Amino acid sequence: AIIVYRLPWTWKCSKLLMKFIHAGLNTIAMILAIVSMVAVFDYHNAKNIPNMYSLHSWIGLAAVIFYSLQLVLGFAVFLLPFAPVHLRAALMPIHVYSGLTIFATVIATALMGITEKLIFALKSPAYSASPPEATLVNCLGLLLVVFGSLILWVASRPHWKRPPAENAKILRTIGATAEGTEVESTMTNSSNADKSDLRINTEAARKQNIKFDEAGQRSTM
Amino acid sequence: AIIVYRLPWTWKCSKLLMKFIHAGLNTIAMILAIVSMVAVFDYHNAKNIPNMYSLHSWIGLAAVIFYSLQLVLGFAVFLLPFAPVHLRAALMPIHVYSGLTIFATVIATALMGITEKLIFALKSPAYSASPPEATLVNCLGLLLVVFGSLILWVASRPHWKRPPAENAKILRTIGATAEGTEVESTMTNSSNADKSDLRINTEAARKQNIKFDEAGQRSTM
Repeated sequence: AIIVYRLPWTWKCSKLLMKFIHAGLNTIAMILAIVSMVAVFDYHNAKNIPNMYSLHSWIGLAAVIFYSLQLVLGFAVFLLPFAPVHLRAALMPIHVYSGLTIFATVIATALMGITEKLIFALKSPAYSASPPEATLVNCLGLLLVVFGSLILWVASRPHWKRPPAENAKILRTIGATAEGTEVESTMTNSSNADKSDLRINTEAARKQNIKFDEAGQRSTM
Repeated sequence: AIIVYRLPWTWKCSKLLMKFIHAGLNTIAMILAIVSMVAVFDYHNAKNIPNMYSLHSWIGLAAVIFYSLQLVLGFAVFLLPFAPVHLRAALMPIHVYSGLTIFATVIATALMGITEKLIFALKSPAYSASPPEATLVNCLGLLLVVFGSLILWVASRPHWKRPPAENAKILRTIGATAEGTEVESTMTNSSNADKSDLRINTEAARKQNIKFDEAGQRSTM
């Protein structure tokens, strides 16, 4: 769900379709998270293990709470058509930061959970004797870190950002201006291109657009 | 060390001084990391506990190895005067990404270490009985996550980036151009400003500079 906007083969899809895929995948993940939390509580209750005592459970629950907040706020602000453009532009960097931070926190929670499980489950031979199962699961934990690092790399590369919307292309071909491009980069409003009185050549405008694309200020429509 | 370039009161210091502070703090942290690793191995050997069996130790060792690589490469490329400007510009995004990823990994390693220690150290009452010590240390673990999130927030805000170097100010006052500004943003070379034949007014140039500052392409001198 995080890198859905970063896949070049999806750049031809409409922005709305991409948003639905992003929201849909996150909704599925949220449902799976709730199902697994119910399973954990049921398992603990059935085995008479106390609930919510470990750091793993505290940070995990915090992550799930922030994740559901992120999902509800993201749905209300970016998917429903009511939020004004300046609110979307203001909340987008927070949405991106929160999403990536929650993702990293979830990886850390999983690593703590793996550590707990290995200590509790491996008794003879113990975890400290490094039986094959311990080595295998340690490798899976390492792969989880590698996976998290790769996702954060893809998500933070400016040149893997989705190219700007159609009106940006229009701006480029008619020869964009500094002011026009700036407006385009924060809110999709091609009418502002007319207001501008500074015209520079198309090549410079193209370079500028590339730069602005990397500026983290993206269309929020 | 991560946020040393993001503190507004340091923006008046020279870039070289900031680099020395950044490298110096990281070197101190590296020495402390080595001291604590030696302490861990000594403790394990004295108590006849096997070394390097846990996921915590694997990921922790990997983080220390990558951290030392980051330190040596950062010193060789960004502090010593031999690396060409284009190499610095190419490696800077990787250096930033690696630093933040290693930082997040170290937080995750600490959380796994806390989990292990609580399970091993708390026996009567056990960790699962939530004695006050468990609650206290869980809170410290939560604070560690909050601390990590704050550092990542500060480090990833474009407007908290160190403003560009002196020649950028010169470019601004003489009226920068699209080409001149682009060059300035990737390599500090004010002579290129003369090559440009597109002149736009100072206010537009100022706006442009702000945008380019956010583009992740910064002076690497």
